[in-house]
Amino acid sequence: MIVRKRPGALGLMLAWKGSVVPHVLPHILLAGLFACAVTWIARHHYLEGIVEYTLLPFTLLGIALSILLSVRNTATYDRWWEARKQWGQMVYEVRSLARVTGIYLEAEPRRELLQCVLAHAHLLRGQLRGETVRAELPPELPATLVDEALSRRNPAEFMLQQAGRVLAREHQAGRLDSVAAATLDKHLYALSGVQAASERIAHTPLPFAYTLLAHRTAYIYCYLLPFGLVGAAGWFTPVFTAIVAYTFFGLDRLSEQLEFPFGRAANDLPLDAICRIHDISVAEALGQPAPELLQPVEFQLQ
Amino acid sequence: MIVRKRPGALGLMLAWKGSVVPHVLPHILLAGLFACAVTWIARHHYLEGIVEYTLLPFTLLGIALSILLSVRNTATYDRWWEARKQWGQMVYEVRSLARVTGIYLEAEPRRELLQCVLAHAHLLRGQLRGETVRAELPPELPATLVDEALSRRNPAEFMLQQAGRVLAREHQAGRLDSVAAATLDKHLYALSGVQAASERIAHTPLPFAYTLLAHRTAYIYCYLLPFGLVGAAGWFTPVFTAIVAYTFFGLDRLSEQLEFPFGRAANDLPLDAICRIHDISVAEALGQPAPELLQPVEFQLQ
Amino acid sequence: MIVRKRPGALGLMLAWKGSVVPHVLPHILLAGLFACAVTWIARHHYLEGIVEYTLLPFTLLGIALSILLSVRNTATYDRWWEARKQWGQMVYEVRSLARVTGIYLEAEPRRELLQCVLAHAHLLRGQLRGETVRAELPPELPATLVDEALSRRNPAEFMLQQAGRVLAREHQAGRLDSVAAATLDKHLYALSGVQAASERIAHTPLPFAYTLLAHRTAYIYCYLLPFGLVGAAGWFTPVFTAIVAYTFFGLDRLSEQLEFPFGRAANDLPLDAICRIHDISVAEALGQPAPELLQPVEFQLQ
Amino acid sequence: MIVRKRPGALGLMLAWKGSVVPHVLPHILLAGLFACAVTWIARHHYLEGIVEYTLLPFTLLGIALSILLSVRNTATYDRWWEARKQWGQMVYEVRSLARVTGIYLEAEPRRELLQCVLAHAHLLRGQLRGETVRAELPPELPATLVDEALSRRNPAEFMLQQAGRVLAREHQAGRLDSVAAATLDKHLYALSGVQAASERIAHTPLPFAYTLLAHRTAYIYCYLLPFGLVGAAGWFTPVFTAIVAYTFFGLDRLSEQLEFPFGRAANDLPLDAICRIHDISVAEALGQPAPELLQPVEFQLQ
Amino acid sequence: MIVRKRPGALGLMLAWKGSVVPHVLPHILLAGLFACAVTWIARHHYLEGIVEYTLLPFTLLGIALSILLSVRNTATYDRWWEARKQWGQMVYEVRSLARVTGIYLEAEPRRELLQCVLAHAHLLRGQLRGETVRAELPPELPATLVDEALSRRNPAEFMLQQAGRVLAREHQAGRLDSVAAATLDKHLYALSGVQAASERIAHTPLPFAYTLLAHRTAYIYCYLLPFGLVGAAGWFTPVFTAIVAYTFFGLDRLSEQLEFPFGRAANDLPLDAICRIHDISVAEALGQPAPELLQPVEFQLQ
Repeated sequence: MIVRKRPGALGLMLAWKGSVVPHVLPHILLAGLFACAVTWIARHHYLEGIVEYTLLPFTLLGIALSILLSVRNTATYDRWWEARKQWGQMVYEVRSLARVTGIYLEAEPRRELLQCVLAHAHLLRGQLRGETVRAELPPELPATLVDEALSRRNPAEFMLQQAGRVLAREHQAGRLDSVAAATLDKHLYALSGVQAASERIAHTPLPFAYTLLAHRTAYIYCYLLPFGLVGAAGWFTPVFTAIVAYTFFGLDRLSEQLEFPFGRAANDLPLDAICRIHDISVAEALGQPAPELLQPVEFQLQ
Repeated sequence: MIVRKRPGALGLMLAWKGSVVPHVLPHILLAGLFACAVTWIARHHYLEGIVEYTLLPFTLLGIALSILLSVRNTATYDRWWEARKQWGQMVYEVRSLARVTGIYLEAEPRRELLQCVLAHAHLLRGQLRGETVRAELPPELPATLVDEALSRRNPAEFMLQQAGRVLAREHQAGRLDSVAAATLDKHLYALSGVQAASERIAHTPLPFAYTLLAHRTAYIYCYLLPFGLVGAAGWFTPVFTAIVAYTFFGLDRLSEQLEFPFGRAANDLPLDAICRIHDISVAEALGQPAPELLQPVEFQLQ
Repeated sequence: MIVRKRPGALGLMLAWKGSVVPHVLPHILLAGLFACAVTWIARHHYLEGIVEYTLLPFTLLGIALSILLSVRNTATYDRWWEARKQWGQMVYEVRSLARVTGIYLEAEPRRELLQCVLAHAHLLRGQLRGETVRAELPPELPATLVDEALSRRNPAEFMLQQAGRVLAREHQAGRLDSVAAATLDKHLYALSGVQAASERIAHTPLPFAYTLLAHRTAYIYCYLLPFGLVGAAGWFTPVFTAIVAYTFFGLDRLSEQLEFPFGRAANDLPLDAICRIHDISVAEALGQPAPELLQPVEFQLQ
Repeated sequence: MIVRKRPGALGLMLAWKGSVVPHVLPHILLAGLFACAVTWIARHHYLEGIVEYTLLPFTLLGIALSILLSVRNTATYDRWWEARKQWGQMVYEVRSLARVTGIYLEAEPRRELLQCVLAHAHLLRGQLRGETVRAELPPELPATLVDEALSRRNPAEFMLQQAGRVLAREHQAGRLDSVAAATLDKHLYALSGVQAASERIAHTPLPFAYTLLAHRTAYIYCYLLPFGLVGAAGWFTPVFTAIVAYTFFGLDRLSEQLEFPFGRAANDLPLDAICRIHDISVAEALGQPAPELLQPVEFQLQ
Repeated sequence: MIVRKRPGALGLMLAWKGSVVPHVLPHILLAGLFACAVTWIARHHYLEGIVEYTLLPFTLLGIALSILLSVRNTATYDRWWEARKQWGQMVYEVRSLARVTGIYLEAEPRRELLQCVLAHAHLLRGQLRGETVRAELPPELPATLVDEALSRRNPAEFMLQQAGRVLAREHQAGRLDSVAAATLDKHLYALSGVQAASERIAHTPLPFAYTLLAHRTAYIYCYLLPFGLVGAAGWFTPVFTAIVAYTFFGLDRLSEQLEFPFGRAANDLPLDAICRIHDISVAEALGQPAPELLQPVEFQLQ
């Protein structure tokens, strides 16, 4: 995630990091070159009698295009924001567990439970990003438990089950009544919900037909545009084509980046920083020294 | 559901599987041919004095059309995404039951309950898809129970009732207090909600008048278009008509595909794969060997 | 609700039942005739010097019109879909009550409670539709109870209170602890929520100023249109006017139909069929023979 | 709130009550007169060489205007509908309290609690409307309690606290266990939520910058319009300007009316009628004679 | 937050405080001056043969621009409104705690708990605004506790943990059963949710690529506009350019202001006034003299 004070107007025009420009520049240039060629041909009258230049059909095509881009854009932004909400919920579930375990559990099972929950967050982050997080798991977790978790289909899920086993043990030993067990489990349930939502967003792309239709319409539009523009805009045609291509390809690429918000790209969510917040919450609850908040590096928070 | 790494620009232009093109190609060609005919007639001056060509009325028609297509598109996408969310919720309800039953139930009733829940998921999938799933039900379920379920109006619902009967038996035997029974039943309640939502989406089409109005306006639009275009676009008329038809018919068909997301079409939801996740959760909870995750075949996850 | 397999392109163009065409046809014809008159007058030069024909003002009017129609359309569709969701929730509340009463209640109070709940659904349906449903209430309900219900301001509400009285009696007799009573009442609370939401939708129209503004703008638009079109479209003017009138009056009427979704019109919700699902759930829970699902008659499910 | 059967097309064109026309008529006339003046000047060639008439810039301005009006319109409608939902929730909270108090409380504290809750609803209505409601409070409430409530910063809130005190007294006297107290308080909590949401809507206007920007753009638009129209529309300019002004000023005023939905204007919510529903629910629960439902007077329900 | 009775039409045109005009005026003037220059050059025929003036390309660019501005505007407004909802929820959580603690807790721990909760609200306000609030914390709070809180990474969070410690102490001393502790903690959980949501909104900007794309498209649009306008609008070009720039830059700036709603700018949320409401609720619950509601100063409520 890019975190920076909003730069001035000039700074905004020149900002490169986090922009979609680097990704769509080749496509913009290609469309511009194509428009140059069309203009040159049109200026030499080779298109006469074939195309009578008019922009009006493009306003019609624009209807479908604006529906496609706008629904897709809204949908991907909603995914991004829902993902952020889910990880924001994780923050207060962990904090609440830190608080509620203090009411119902004794020191040792409390520590055990909170470490499982912390490990769950780190493992989930690893699963969503396809990374190994073993080094960042709480060091007090027994290595055999970590090994067993990593041998499962879904290590994060295993850690939640493990937290449930702590509750089961305390309940069966009579140190936790049914109400308290249910109250504590409610937070594990919520964490399970965060995990399922994250997996849903990470593994369910927008309907492929949608991406195809939006992408194709945008490309057809930009490559037909010079024929409509050249009659009215002359040598401004490549400029306009490039600008229109910039906005449409830019929107297309933006939607693509927001569709899967859990990676390490510039506009993805700062899962590392959120997990650090969990580290702090758990450390302070257990009376251990708390690490620092993660800071952005070159405007980017990981 | 189509799952593939986003192909390059060229790959996106050529992708066939999951695209709506195969379904609307005949309609596009027909509209294009009609436009050819109109252009030929117009070029031979047979329309003079009858139609003075202008595109402007189409921007007016476009207002109504864009409202219709955009509301319909948003509504069907929301249905698709809500269906996915419901089945995502099922994932964490099953996992949570696996965890919470470990707190409150003994081994045997726990196994029984989890198998009922698993059977519920498979039976619901079968009901939504109109398929027989008997072979995929947990093999430990007594055949008489399965027979009884299948003889009911709603076999999936019967399995949830059966899970409730396990709780009732344990509660009446005094092995489960009221709080624990209520806590466990909360998850059955949520699964019942997933089922009702799935049935709602599967059995309630968009208001028929809506589909009709959107469909008709799109067709009228595309078949009137050549008369408006031919004056300005000449022999480009069939090309433009075909492209506009592609986007409008494409949107129409896309909405139709997303309206009922539980089938086996390319853009439908991967219910088989989700049920496999349940199989894994339950197997790992019961200490049984867990099956593999389902993999996409030719980019399609069933 | 219209339930039919999507007909082919031709079938969709000709479908009559469930369409808004029958309701707006007179208005379309009137607008078309008016446009004929304007065209005839314009062709005889009587408008010259008064109107210089241009369509451009209509794109401006179109801005306000599209906002009005689109917000109104979205709002009425949301009402329709929320109503469907509420009655879908009723389905799983009834099923859950069938299940949870099996855990906490003995046979007789269970039967009593479920029949009150069933009567609640039927009575609510009757109240929303302004119909008498006495014949369809569960036959085991004492006639005096039914009489008392029907003498109240809100018979459906009385039945829920009656269900609450069953719980109160069992609780005071010590056969139901506080947790169990609260757990059962949670479902009565949810049913009360469904009722309040249904009454809200049935008795709160969209703000009247909204309906007026949308309706008037659409009419002004369609009756001014011929003056703008006649210069460019000649004798095509009545055709275009009729088509534009079809889409705008169609959207207007569609919104009106979806605004109150509880009636018996073609696009209204199938409350009878949903109540039949409740009948089945309760019958199967009580071990009684279950009736058949209701089937659509001439594509319409009541 | 205006409640009337939808009048015919003519009735809709002529309806006055509940329409925004009376509020915006002076502004429409002013814009129309201004347009007359511009047309007269233009006809006498005084604008030549200064303005070359064109409508196209207005389609550009229209982009910003449509975003502003549409977001503002959606936002104010959502406020109106949310307010209605909150007061609809109050209906079923009161009914549920009537039911649940029957399970857990004895006759006297039950009566006391329900009267506090009823007084809460009336007092909140009074606070939102800036009216005195003392005469409509339940007559059995001790005058000293009412006096004390009215001396507080927030009398409605005091009544909920008072209801809580009834629960506290019963709980401390051992007549109400913890579960029952929590169950009953859940409804007071929900009523507290309804109150906070109502206060939020009543006291938080849309961001003022938003209102300003939308208002100003609409006015600038309507007063520049004659310059663009006069070249193409001649003496139709004032007509078109007035119609466009009607739709834009109408939307502006409509948003303003829906922004604060708790007053007594024609499109505001019928809080009196909803409070009467509470009166009925409580009276029937306590076995007292229930008043009649409030009826609309001249189509308006207060 | 600006709170004022809606001024008349003239007052709305002239209002300065809370308007975005002061912030975008330099940019509007710059765009207007640039348009003057372009017009002067065009009038002297220096552009001939290079640009053939036409506005049509701008309607195309307008598609992308309207999607960008509208999605961004909707998203930032939603953030602003969600933030208001969260702080509105805090109001009724505090009031509910005032009520529920009266049921379950004795006087001393009740006072202690409510003061922690009050301190949490003030500290959170301070953290969100980057201000010191020590002077406004409840004076009865022990100084050592406040010191400890301020030494933590997250002082507000510490205060909630402290409230949890009060519950833990009472629970372990046997003065609070499991149900009551869980009931009270539910409100701390909700406050924790308010805090996490506030932090989410305060620390997560919209995706930077979004802001960039919207900003750049708006600027490119406004600086290209004179070339398109000058052919049709002559010396009206600078006027139109300035007006279009006003609406687009205004929307851009508006979105920026709503994106982070917790500051002290004119359109930000009145956190001070909301915290004062908490002060009143807690004071009245504890029988202490309640302070006055905060009043707007020069139309602005802090």
